[in-house]
Amino acid sequence: MNTSLNRDVVLCEVGPRDGLQNTKTFMPTEQKKAWIAAEVACGVHEIEICSFVPAKLIPQFVDAAEIVAFANSIPELVSTVLVPNLRGFENAVAAGARRVAVPLSASEAHSQSNVRKSREAALADFAAMVDANRAKPEHERATIVGAVATAFGCTIQGLVTEADVIFMTEGILNAGADEVIVADTVGYASPAQIKAIFTKVIRTIGPDVPLAAHFHDTRGLGIANALAAYDVGVRHFDATLGGLGGCPYAPGASGNVVMEDLAFAFEAMGVRTGIDLDALIALRRTVFNDMAGLETYGHLGLAGLPKGFEATTAA
Amino acid sequence: MNTSLNRDVVLCEVGPRDGLQNTKTFMPTEQKKAWIAAEVACGVHEIEICSFVPAKLIPQFVDAAEIVAFANSIPELVSTVLVPNLRGFENAVAAGARRVAVPLSASEAHSQSNVRKSREAALADFAAMVDANRAKPEHERATIVGAVATAFGCTIQGLVTEADVIFMTEGILNAGADEVIVADTVGYASPAQIKAIFTKVIRTIGPDVPLAAHFHDTRGLGIANALAAYDVGVRHFDATLGGLGGCPYAPGASGNVVMEDLAFAFEAMGVRTGIDLDALIALRRTVFNDMAGLETYGHLGLAGLPKGFEATTAA
Repeated sequence: MNTSLNRDVVLCEVGPRDGLQNTKTFMPTEQKKAWIAAEVACGVHEIEICSFVPAKLIPQFVDAAEIVAFANSIPELVSTVLVPNLRGFENAVAAGARRVAVPLSASEAHSQSNVRKSREAALADFAAMVDANRAKPEHERATIVGAVATAFGCTIQGLVTEADVIFMTEGILNAGADEVIVADTVGYASPAQIKAIFTKVIRTIGPDVPLAAHFHDTRGLGIANALAAYDVGVRHFDATLGGLGGCPYAPGASGNVVMEDLAFAFEAMGVRTGIDLDALIALRRTVFNDMAGLETYGHLGLAGLPKGFEATTAA
Repeated sequence: MNTSLNRDVVLCEVGPRDGLQNTKTFMPTEQKKAWIAAEVACGVHEIEICSFVPAKLIPQFVDAAEIVAFANSIPELVSTVLVPNLRGFENAVAAGARRVAVPLSASEAHSQSNVRKSREAALADFAAMVDANRAKPEHERATIVGAVATAFGCTIQGLVTEADVIFMTEGILNAGADEVIVADTVGYASPAQIKAIFTKVIRTIGPDVPLAAHFHDTRGLGIANALAAYDVGVRHFDATLGGLGGCPYAPGASGNVVMEDLAFAFEAMGVRTGIDLDALIALRRTVFNDMAGLETYGHLGLAGLPKGFEATTAA
């Protein structure tokens, strides 16, 4: 991951993938490109840009290959694509993707429901993907990120234990993942749980494998959870501009942590994000104003920065 | 303050005062009473019920005396009224109020703008109120709470320093306050600032004077700030059901911390609130469904509790 000298944390925008995935309205390809380029210009240098899933399942990503090519044209951008399986991985790499994220559920019930496989079978598929990657010529290989999904609870089975999370983290590492993400996919976690589990995850993976956290703000704890993870050593966080990805039928039951609110939270505490907050707030309006059917969330976009607020990051 | 044996923190509902104060629609007196009684039944045993201000300034509180009499009929309720000055104090006590909160700005600019007095003059008025209280027969005396307002920043002057907050806290103590509240009136604080200032405030007031925190969620940090204050020892928190008190012209730029979200945050961390979360979520619908013009906020009321969630507090 790209940790520039002028930032203490790296915030990764996942709206073009996790936000748009839950959006019925198709965002035109040119608008996606404009969003990605503009957010890089705000100082957000990591973006999850699309998903390589069959277009008949999620039409939003029919332009995935074109988006990858565009992202590769922006030198300072580290872009990631989501791939659900080996076929998606091969398509992504063929399109030029250099970093792929693969979700694997810590919840057995969610794994069965989502990919109709046990967790062990999903790990075996993941290992096969890593092997396929290693078999490629070096210049074609991607960085492979294993994402432990539903790590703090699951809407199907409810409780997910620490042992479940460590089991999946170890499985992902043993399979040969380059990096790890741990995700509160459904917004169940509390800061106490975050600190306990991330402390164990960090001990499990050691200092050499990059680790990121992916939180949802479903029950209002997204920002508090991110700050709790920061407290125990996490430095990479996913978020979406305007909290894109909330359920359109439950306004306020939002999806991903709101990028501009999270960036403000860190900057207000003197933790440098490298992000220009004023530009990011303005971008929120530019990106979403013309999109019908997109529900956005968050506080900073409405309230603005405090009077006299000085970000650590020069605009 | 009332710290029952079955709770680790005390959450004080301030919606009938701080929420309704910012609401143009008059809530009928019977509906206010029903709200107060129902929230006590949910396990919320402290409520700020009204304000003793001239009805021509804030018509919402024309029924303040009747609300005080009603609150006094509920044995387990510790009710508080806000009073802006000596006249308001005398009216409150005459109506039977037993606990009064008096806001005093840490920001000189806000003090001048809000009450047209310097901070020193406001402290002198506060001292006169304490003296008037002490001059009364014992059974007529109220508990007097000094509330340090705009303690983390101000929309007029911007920065408010730690020295400003300690100056006002000491002034309030020297004047003879029974209890202290420190308030982020405009939602400017960050968790780092919260920890720094509350640590100093706690050192200033010592262990014998009860201390509460009053946060707004204007920039999405309300819950994180409350948890930060808890970390350094604060155990009493203000909040409003449904986040009542947000600005109706900026949806999402919410006001007070959302009671049900804050209660969930604590319960999810094993910190006992004594509150029945399911009953509180249901109450949110009962209280606000019939009120036109009331904008509510918060996540838990829309998302519900996590599957399998076990509160520390038995329903």
